[in-house]
Amino acid sequence: MTTIVPSGIVTVTTDFGHKGPFAAVMKGVILSRFRGAEIIDLAHDIPAHWPAEAGFWIHHAYTYFPDGTVHIAIVDPGVGTEREIILVEYDKHIFIAPDNGLLDSIINLSDSPQVNRLDLNKLASIGITNPSATFHGRDIFAPVAAELAAGRIVPSAVGSRTTQWTPGLLSEPDHGEQSISGVVVTVDAFGNLITNIGGDMLERFALVRVRVAGHELELKTTYGRALPGEYLALINSFNVVEIARAEGSAADGLGTERGAPVQVFEYDG
Amino acid sequence: MTTIVPSGIVTVTTDFGHKGPFAAVMKGVILSRFRGAEIIDLAHDIPAHWPAEAGFWIHHAYTYFPDGTVHIAIVDPGVGTEREIILVEYDKHIFIAPDNGLLDSIINLSDSPQVNRLDLNKLASIGITNPSATFHGRDIFAPVAAELAAGRIVPSAVGSRTTQWTPGLLSEPDHGEQSISGVVVTVDAFGNLITNIGGDMLERFALVRVRVAGHELELKTTYGRALPGEYLALINSFNVVEIARAEGSAADGLGTERGAPVQVFEYDG
Amino acid sequence: MTTIVPSGIVTVTTDFGHKGPFAAVMKGVILSRFRGAEIIDLAHDIPAHWPAEAGFWIHHAYTYFPDGTVHIAIVDPGVGTEREIILVEYDKHIFIAPDNGLLDSIINLSDSPQVNRLDLNKLASIGITNPSATFHGRDIFAPVAAELAAGRIVPSAVGSRTTQWTPGLLSEPDHGEQSISGVVVTVDAFGNLITNIGGDMLERFALVRVRVAGHELELKTTYGRALPGEYLALINSFNVVEIARAEGSAADGLGTERGAPVQVFEYDG
Repeated sequence: MTTIVPSGIVTVTTDFGHKGPFAAVMKGVILSRFRGAEIIDLAHDIPAHWPAEAGFWIHHAYTYFPDGTVHIAIVDPGVGTEREIILVEYDKHIFIAPDNGLLDSIINLSDSPQVNRLDLNKLASIGITNPSATFHGRDIFAPVAAELAAGRIVPSAVGSRTTQWTPGLLSEPDHGEQSISGVVVTVDAFGNLITNIGGDMLERFALVRVRVAGHELELKTTYGRALPGEYLALINSFNVVEIARAEGSAADGLGTERGAPVQVFEYDG
Repeated sequence: MTTIVPSGIVTVTTDFGHKGPFAAVMKGVILSRFRGAEIIDLAHDIPAHWPAEAGFWIHHAYTYFPDGTVHIAIVDPGVGTEREIILVEYDKHIFIAPDNGLLDSIINLSDSPQVNRLDLNKLASIGITNPSATFHGRDIFAPVAAELAAGRIVPSAVGSRTTQWTPGLLSEPDHGEQSISGVVVTVDAFGNLITNIGGDMLERFALVRVRVAGHELELKTTYGRALPGEYLALINSFNVVEIARAEGSAADGLGTERGAPVQVFEYDG
Repeated sequence: MTTIVPSGIVTVTTDFGHKGPFAAVMKGVILSRFRGAEIIDLAHDIPAHWPAEAGFWIHHAYTYFPDGTVHIAIVDPGVGTEREIILVEYDKHIFIAPDNGLLDSIINLSDSPQVNRLDLNKLASIGITNPSATFHGRDIFAPVAAELAAGRIVPSAVGSRTTQWTPGLLSEPDHGEQSISGVVVTVDAFGNLITNIGGDMLERFALVRVRVAGHELELKTTYGRALPGEYLALINSFNVVEIARAEGSAADGLGTERGAPVQVFEYDG
């Protein structure tokens, strides 16, 4: 394992929403330990019951940050139960999240995942002695991220190497002979439906159509190619299949939400 | 009085919401005066008529920031009227807010509160000559905070020591023989009801129950100990009594909002 | 043309809302190129069909940032079509936006506007070779802003000087003999209606009244001068005419939205 040179940047993804001081308090903890940290809010609007969305966005966003960035994600209905925390190293980035499947899409990128399970007994070494039962973001994630971002520890200093973790609830796209079946992972502010079907998976098809909520849509190259009100599918800027409605909300128009099945298939006219 | 060594950090709490450039303009003013400032949004969703919530969050959040941090809070139905601005020093932090009771819970922490009343005549010394009547956040709070965070002034440079200020609208919890009466101070994004009853106050009781909106709830140690849909009370990570609903919203379920009475009492079976 | 000494600050204005990682990814791109950048969210809630609001806020906010700040704005129903991008230099600040009229109010400030049209062929010089069709914020605006903020390029390095651009959809206020006609440009979080009628324009009138949605309102000096529920007009802290409702929402009360006509006129009793 090569050592990761820290960028000093920490991204934060949560289900806290934008109310109250919860994210701010985590930033205070990070800055108290490492005044040079640069903290970026990645997203705070992940649905609490849908950790896969946090993993999806981190998977598709992390490459735009410098090597050596620490990404923490807290979407965590199980806080206060026995669920544990894992630290994953991949592609010179470090990812920290509850062991609830959130990081599945990151872990699946590697043939030999580098995963450490956080060991509460090792936290005393960085001065964490009595974390609250209900705000691990402040009492565990933030100080650990600060120490990693400052380059003062590596993940194994607070964890133990493991080959076992909780798998994600979302299955990877299913590749049939004539089609690929995936799901809507998230819905953006414009009501676009974003799926887990990668653009690369479509290369084997000559002419592609997308089936969602009883509609069959053509794959277009950009939003601008559709008429107002028209639905369309496209490969979006994160290189996954997206269903949009020109000058409207596909989610509202189709009555479709996270988890809805989406099928891409070869169209033979 | 010992001099506070500034951390260079400024936290900002307002009722501006997340629309428009109002907080950003304040940051521009701070950075124009002190490029090294680190500005953290604490909360921007405080209800305009409920300054106590700003004070509550600042009270419970400030210790997570480094000593020498400046905290500004603007929840201010009275802007443009004769209300004044106070600067409070406590525990090596500086707090600035309208003199409308917002900082009550900070001031009450001290036996000998260090309060300065802002003196508009002294603002010329830091180049503020003609503040607008309607945006004190930009024209007074931001430049004063920048100068304090840069360590170029102390509070008395822009204010006069005072022993009089406007008390808060929210009374402190009332300690009876068998019970403690408090109120819901704020409701978080999950619909949890957060009260002003400190966890420490419960130590004298053997077995505790909490009464709210006609319900009597047991005190549990964490969210995870309740069944889905069940209401529970707990001492939260900010060490105050909180009423939650497992996998749901207590505020919606109980029809309860800020200001609702909450009673903690000794349960004798 | 004088060279602008960069402040290292970049402001970001979009129609992305506060959902998802879109603004964060832009910040990652900027920090990857220029770790010393200070990135300030100006506003992310501009209505997608109303770029004029982005231009209005940037126009009224930019002076509060240090000279040498780069302001990027992406409100862009036309992304993926043939619309182009312009860079405007004014008053020692740099502004970058789609050429859709968004920057009209900045351009109109100058007698000899300094406008460069972005030249995609020149982007290779800063390592941008294959921008996505749908996320120019990440693939073009962010890296260009980073290079400008770092002082490594000037606008002409990535653009060609032009004297032609798309005019804004919002006309400037119309000055009649007895009155000035303008429109509501934006509505803030409190429901205040903010117009494009500058306070300076009113100086020629002795006694002013404001007509909006069938109401005739007096011009007051501050919010505090009105009774609860009363409508009032005032010259706000950005020096434009604003219609407010004391302790209420003028937008809700008057049923008035962006684009509504507003008239200021001489009142002769």
